[in-house]
Amino acid sequence: MAYSGEPLLAEDLLFRPVHSLIDQSLHSELGATTTNGDGFGIGWYGESARPAVFKNIEPAWNDRNLREIAAQVRTSLFFAHVRSSTGTPVQRSNCHPFRYGNWLWMHNGALHGFHGYKRDLVTAVAPEMFADIEGSTDSEVLFYLALTFGLTDDPFTAVARAVGLVEQVAREHRVEDSVQMTVATTDGESMWFFRYSTLRQSRSLFYSNDVDKVRALHPEVKALRELGAEARFVVSEPLRDLPGAWHEVRESSAGVVRSGHDELRPFQPIAP
Amino acid sequence: MAYSGEPLLAEDLLFRPVHSLIDQSLHSELGATTTNGDGFGIGWYGESARPAVFKNIEPAWNDRNLREIAAQVRTSLFFAHVRSSTGTPVQRSNCHPFRYGNWLWMHNGALHGFHGYKRDLVTAVAPEMFADIEGSTDSEVLFYLALTFGLTDDPFTAVARAVGLVEQVAREHRVEDSVQMTVATTDGESMWFFRYSTLRQSRSLFYSNDVDKVRALHPEVKALRELGAEARFVVSEPLRDLPGAWHEVRESSAGVVRSGHDELRPFQPIAP
Amino acid sequence: MAYSGEPLLAEDLLFRPVHSLIDQSLHSELGATTTNGDGFGIGWYGESARPAVFKNIEPAWNDRNLREIAAQVRTSLFFAHVRSSTGTPVQRSNCHPFRYGNWLWMHNGALHGFHGYKRDLVTAVAPEMFADIEGSTDSEVLFYLALTFGLTDDPFTAVARAVGLVEQVAREHRVEDSVQMTVATTDGESMWFFRYSTLRQSRSLFYSNDVDKVRALHPEVKALRELGAEARFVVSEPLRDLPGAWHEVRESSAGVVRSGHDELRPFQPIAP
Amino acid sequence: MAYSGEPLLAEDLLFRPVHSLIDQSLHSELGATTTNGDGFGIGWYGESARPAVFKNIEPAWNDRNLREIAAQVRTSLFFAHVRSSTGTPVQRSNCHPFRYGNWLWMHNGALHGFHGYKRDLVTAVAPEMFADIEGSTDSEVLFYLALTFGLTDDPFTAVARAVGLVEQVAREHRVEDSVQMTVATTDGESMWFFRYSTLRQSRSLFYSNDVDKVRALHPEVKALRELGAEARFVVSEPLRDLPGAWHEVRESSAGVVRSGHDELRPFQPIAP
Repeated sequence: MAYSGEPLLAEDLLFRPVHSLIDQSLHSELGATTTNGDGFGIGWYGESARPAVFKNIEPAWNDRNLREIAAQVRTSLFFAHVRSSTGTPVQRSNCHPFRYGNWLWMHNGALHGFHGYKRDLVTAVAPEMFADIEGSTDSEVLFYLALTFGLTDDPFTAVARAVGLVEQVAREHRVEDSVQMTVATTDGESMWFFRYSTLRQSRSLFYSNDVDKVRALHPEVKALRELGAEARFVVSEPLRDLPGAWHEVRESSAGVVRSGHDELRPFQPIAP
Repeated sequence: MAYSGEPLLAEDLLFRPVHSLIDQSLHSELGATTTNGDGFGIGWYGESARPAVFKNIEPAWNDRNLREIAAQVRTSLFFAHVRSSTGTPVQRSNCHPFRYGNWLWMHNGALHGFHGYKRDLVTAVAPEMFADIEGSTDSEVLFYLALTFGLTDDPFTAVARAVGLVEQVAREHRVEDSVQMTVATTDGESMWFFRYSTLRQSRSLFYSNDVDKVRALHPEVKALRELGAEARFVVSEPLRDLPGAWHEVRESSAGVVRSGHDELRPFQPIAP
Repeated sequence: MAYSGEPLLAEDLLFRPVHSLIDQSLHSELGATTTNGDGFGIGWYGESARPAVFKNIEPAWNDRNLREIAAQVRTSLFFAHVRSSTGTPVQRSNCHPFRYGNWLWMHNGALHGFHGYKRDLVTAVAPEMFADIEGSTDSEVLFYLALTFGLTDDPFTAVARAVGLVEQVAREHRVEDSVQMTVATTDGESMWFFRYSTLRQSRSLFYSNDVDKVRALHPEVKALRELGAEARFVVSEPLRDLPGAWHEVRESSAGVVRSGHDELRPFQPIAP
Repeated sequence: MAYSGEPLLAEDLLFRPVHSLIDQSLHSELGATTTNGDGFGIGWYGESARPAVFKNIEPAWNDRNLREIAAQVRTSLFFAHVRSSTGTPVQRSNCHPFRYGNWLWMHNGALHGFHGYKRDLVTAVAPEMFADIEGSTDSEVLFYLALTFGLTDDPFTAVARAVGLVEQVAREHRVEDSVQMTVATTDGESMWFFRYSTLRQSRSLFYSNDVDKVRALHPEVKALRELGAEARFVVSEPLRDLPGAWHEVRESSAGVVRSGHDELRPFQPIAP
């Protein structure tokens, strides 16, 4: 879940039951399935350009510190992630969002066969960044590859090159369906998102940009009334009862949201 | 899940995928539902009469220490529990099984409205045991009430009196459906189990005592071939594909299993 | 450690090495001794009258989430505590500060022999509060006794009555040196502190109210320059190199700090 | 701490206060200093050739599960380690002992400047082992380098080549004091240990091989009476009151202990 817009309390985004728009979208992630109980993380921009991250290895649904902090964090750019381990250890350094400088990165999905070609990927990371990789996940390596290929200058191209490299390396190891991803990344001002998989069977990704419509449907929700014209959500799962408020991000596409500007475009990996 | 019989590795009881009898029965508890991810515990008898307990607040399904220990624990009396919190904190002292001296206690269910009459219950616990209560759950208080009423001498009567007290106290607080429980308890030699609820809508409880039949159905399972005539399982959920091997514990009944002796009897709370 | 005054970042109070005044005072608590590694907690007032608490069972010195949060929390009333267990489990519900409504409570010390007379104390807690006790420590019970005796109306009297009760109950159990405490408590506006022990050998407690003098001694510390006339610290250990900035709270005394008002007075338990 | 010999309870090695020989040697590791509170681990050989490891991120001194397990583990080869992080995260995958197949590895010390040349070291690990590295510590990389250089065939040579590589790579990055280590490693039958540092200022390492003498000095310790002729301890710190029972491992030397055979020899890194 990613939010960009007027400052809101994280609690309003994560927990408040009356906020059906946000709450339901999150409930599908935050506890609805067993497979998302392997740690969680939130990231936000507050006192400085470097974002804060709070991550823990317990399930999000019962973490009392998360509730405490969510009640205090008021931010205009908020990331939240719940993890389902695909084999790597449940430890804080494997929880999303990952951070580098003032950037955050979250990934749903997997690099299939990662264990078999991990070495080839991490040796492709820029040497000066190599030792900053703290965890053992495919998601973090994908982030560092994107950083290596210029994420901070041109996110669309950098992610396309990172994915292109993964696919080529995987094919060399006879893995044909290597990439499965929805990704969200931000520098604190803009929010980029990607939906792509090698087999063109990507996990779902949705964004909301019609705040007025959502507000009209839910006049009882106080926080919605406070949402400004710039409020944007990017979520993995749509809200069944608010189909009109959500746009599905198409297969093999990417987008960016920043103040006064939304953009969607096709996404195509760039082979090395 | 409770096992009594010839010494087996805990791993064979908890994890080995080929052991479909045991594994499937446990998979329904150990990770199949989100609501059982709030900590877990195992208890067993080994080097001394006092049982060992290993309990943790993370979900069982991804706890690497649990896998390590399960591969080393060989025991003839094994308890395992996965917790779904009903509001009390996720902390080790709230995880089952609970231990007192050489006794273990596990409870599935709840004392409805417990928060409202907790004080009346804990003040009914024998004063000399009071300060040994370490956690904050209804399940542990029920254990201490049973201990107060003579669990170590006559488990059937003690649990009946404990339940009778809870129901009376709850009614005084206008809670009419107070007790929901399946309970297993042991002193290391015998294993008692109870199925009861105030509204006579108790959670399921099953036991297996026909080892020869199970073995005939699953000749490929090595551990089953090693099961002796004394092997007994008590589980919360039956195995759909082995209906013949399981006996459902009837509504409002209790039982005991010990070497060369099985017994089932009706269960009736004893009001104070 | 307790701070009251102009809004400051928790990070400036807890971690910044250049802030020798605060940092050194905290280093003696936050990691300098093995015996303070059994969990920690911070509490602060932010988005609402109800304070937030962030508590964890790991040692504070290496908790990455604490560093993240401390870099974001800006508050005018901040409590921090590191715990050394005297036997009760290391679990979040046993970490300070404890919270009730908009009140926070921290205690250094112990009720000696607590296990032996715990039952007598908790049954003296107001019945309607009883079930809100979540942990198993003496410190939390002392808080609930103070609440029972009117903490929210008259803290000085309430704590005196709570201590008086503990001493009487302990004596009935032949414990003559029952109370050892330094306590800080707050409603978000005023900050009360107490130094007392039955044997009149209380742990140290210091407060700082001479901001101008501290500033003059440390012109290089930016945060000190930002400290206003209302800034007050209450700490367990004095700073050796700034003796002039600290006042030792005398044996058997108590105090209160609020905007424009400081007060110190003798403290005497009130027997039931 | 490493033990090899007749089967003993881990509890006797770790906790029993009356066992002053073992207990005191461990107390210096298990909690005596703040800097060893960043996680711990034990490893032992039990039900199979593959050793078990139990590791946790909390301080060892208050971990209740450790006490439970130590009371049940009876083994003839036991490793125990308490960690003091030098910057890498406190997470289970960074705790010692590390395991590969039937081998265990523990390291006290550091590879100075590791962050700056980590990439050069991990790319020297055998590609087929690369992805098995789970944590982010220098100690684990040193283990994998030793494995790469033939640890399972010839531990003395393999460790010498691993250290030689580290020193060369470090020098290329202008780090002149790269290696500081005491290491213990085992395949379940023999136990090798190393004491070395680039500057020849290695941390202490001691071994005990005079069981008869120790027994004579401590006739009151029951476990000592049960120690057989094969009992050997390797510890980081000597016991001040039993100087005669301990042999200091000399600077730049290594050794091996197995049934009926002890050996000490000089240790010299082998440059690539």
